[in-house]
Amino acid sequence: MAATATAGVILIGDEILSGKTADQNARLLITELRELGVALRRIVVIPDVVEEIATAVGEHAARYDHVFTSGGVGPTHDDLTMEGVARAFSSRVIHHPELERLLRLYYGERLGERHLRMAEVPEGAELVAGSDPSWPVVAMRNVYILPGIPEIFARKFRAIRERFRQSPYHLRCIFTSDEEGIIASELDRIVASYPDLQVGSYPLLSGADYKVKVTLESKDVGRVEEATRALVEALGSAVVRVT
Amino acid sequence: MAATATAGVILIGDEILSGKTADQNARLLITELRELGVALRRIVVIPDVVEEIATAVGEHAARYDHVFTSGGVGPTHDDLTMEGVARAFSSRVIHHPELERLLRLYYGERLGERHLRMAEVPEGAELVAGSDPSWPVVAMRNVYILPGIPEIFARKFRAIRERFRQSPYHLRCIFTSDEEGIIASELDRIVASYPDLQVGSYPLLSGADYKVKVTLESKDVGRVEEATRALVEALGSAVVRVT
Repeated sequence: MAATATAGVILIGDEILSGKTADQNARLLITELRELGVALRRIVVIPDVVEEIATAVGEHAARYDHVFTSGGVGPTHDDLTMEGVARAFSSRVIHHPELERLLRLYYGERLGERHLRMAEVPEGAELVAGSDPSWPVVAMRNVYILPGIPEIFARKFRAIRERFRQSPYHLRCIFTSDEEGIIASELDRIVASYPDLQVGSYPLLSGADYKVKVTLESKDVGRVEEATRALVEALGSAVVRVT
Repeated sequence: MAATATAGVILIGDEILSGKTADQNARLLITELRELGVALRRIVVIPDVVEEIATAVGEHAARYDHVFTSGGVGPTHDDLTMEGVARAFSSRVIHHPELERLLRLYYGERLGERHLRMAEVPEGAELVAGSDPSWPVVAMRNVYILPGIPEIFARKFRAIRERFRQSPYHLRCIFTSDEEGIIASELDRIVASYPDLQVGSYPLLSGADYKVKVTLESKDVGRVEEATRALVEALGSAVVRVT
């Protein structure tokens, strides 16, 4: 089985850290990447500071297969993502002719000098057309640069999503009437016998018919089913249900 | 004016990255820290991997005044936060006598060996009692270790919140009928004249009576008011309203 592709997400935005805007874009990527079978390994929210953008992009690009940035790509003083990504790759910002053409089409006579800032990309960046060629995504190597406005973010990501698709995850959930402290030893045995599985344990404070939700998952459906059967047997009457 | 205290937040949880649980704890801290006048500078979501926890905690603790972790503090195999924080400070995990006493009180005869894992803390950690002494928070230097369950997270944070209070932020918003490309030059002038202010520019795609929301903020109310008056005058009839 091929190694699962990994991903990192970088949200660039003072507005999220200061509570002016609630994030929608990381939420969308969590759902989408999961559905695509990609392992999301890190999300970071950083301010509109070019050095912080450059450092985060450099680290994530070296560490994960795919990196997605959100925000900081408009024409104003706080739009520093292109500069930050360029610095991460020891590149510089240039005007992209195809983006300039699209901007001229869109703005026509209203096009001002500042609008042209939106044609700036790191030197070496490509336009990824995807399924909706009127909304190309700027990609610098494995870094996909997406805008912060949620409607445009979603539309652009969905246009390129299929290039990231992997085999799907399989997930089983076992709900128990015993607390974590009671089932911990049985969980340890399963984790030791099935080191290739992700095993999670999530206690609930109150308000449901169970105390802990145990999750077992991997891309190998057979292993998940086998581990689920073994754990259900070990937990015995503490199992409320399995989904 | 004293420098504003800064904060970093570390969410430890495969369940967030894989979409099993939606984050509530970073959202709470965004709102609370803002209200307390603390500058939140970074949020990171990482998996339940002890080396990643250690690295993130070490970096954040060195860089920000206050660090808050969420998750990974129960009795099961995926609860690795205490070990990660200990490693970040080249410390080791020990049993805390006061936490052990509280666990014995709570569980009584049901107390098992695995429950005692919840008395483990990094050597050198303190218990911060706050306003609700039955819910102490484990703190290792400037790192406050909070549990992932949102109800307990909120209760514990609120018990200690007043120790972080700073002078409040002042915020003004100017809504404009012109796009970002048109107002960008005026914004540049304000940013140059008021380098001590945070100036944000947030375009809206559709569905409102304005195109851009400009935010001006700082802890100095006089500077915010002065910059707001100057920008309103410069933007003229493009100003839809000021709040």
